[in-house]
Amino acid sequence: MNIIVYTTCPNEEVARTISHKVVTERLAACVHRHQAGTSVYEWEGRVEEDSEILLMIKTKEKLYEPLEAAILEAHPYDVPEIIAVSIDNGLAAYLRWIDHLD
Amino acid sequence: MNIIVYTTCPNEEVARTISHKVVTERLAACVHRHQAGTSVYEWEGRVEEDSEILLMIKTKEKLYEPLEAAILEAHPYDVPEIIAVSIDNGLAAYLRWIDHLD
Amino acid sequence: MNIIVYTTCPNEEVARTISHKVVTERLAACVHRHQAGTSVYEWEGRVEEDSEILLMIKTKEKLYEPLEAAILEAHPYDVPEIIAVSIDNGLAAYLRWIDHLD
Repeated sequence: MNIIVYTTCPNEEVARTISHKVVTERLAACVHRHQAGTSVYEWEGRVEEDSEILLMIKTKEKLYEPLEAAILEAHPYDVPEIIAVSIDNGLAAYLRWIDHLD
Repeated sequence: MNIIVYTTCPNEEVARTISHKVVTERLAACVHRHQAGTSVYEWEGRVEEDSEILLMIKTKEKLYEPLEAAILEAHPYDVPEIIAVSIDNGLAAYLRWIDHLD
Repeated sequence: MNIIVYTTCPNEEVARTISHKVVTERLAACVHRHQAGTSVYEWEGRVEEDSEILLMIKTKEKLYEPLEAAILEAHPYDVPEIIAVSIDNGLAAYLRWIDHLD
């Protein structure tokens, strides 16, 4: 089973560092860095807005734990958004390419 | 179970209003507003293009119905895109933070 | 069952061609073209970065095979990213609109 893992980063530098780290450490086949968007959330009773960059990470389900650990290592937040969605279908050759991760 | 809910908005004002409304009303833990993209769809036999802003809303499955109602209240379309995808895994502390929504 | 299908395109021209093709051929109800982001991946031992445009295609599960074939026809890569995620819930009228695809 393959998955998409999303995380958000406070700036381009962190986004770049994390995307290169998880690909170099063969914890992800590919990472798409979106352009900076705006995250809205409640913090201590106030609605806050921050500029954040969303990463869309494609990997294998069995690599989720080490991928999470690698993101936490390089992320400045204590509790960053790290969520995973199942890939239910896809181009067979592309899914095999994701699977080439040892 | 937590979910990602996607909706698209015609402009920044609607996107901002909806993202603040669903966070303020504690129907979502966090909303990521993407930069404006382009939506392509068929309408009365013609392929149309509109600028739209995608919202990526993170919440609890049991809040889907009131979240949908709140989006419809603030959205100018009669039938906006509102679709939900299951979050199958994630950072435990982040998932607990989503769950803190009453 | 409805699905979101993601594919990434090397430039605006390919992104536009594919989004119009799949809507015109009634293989998708709607396609959202994101602004160009950056894809990071490993190729022959090096970490590469390319500008890519993500398409978020909304369609019916039973149209996945012909949609995949149509994307491959118009895509310059041999093995593009084509991955599908299930839509688990949504605005009933919007889901019916997706279903209006024959």
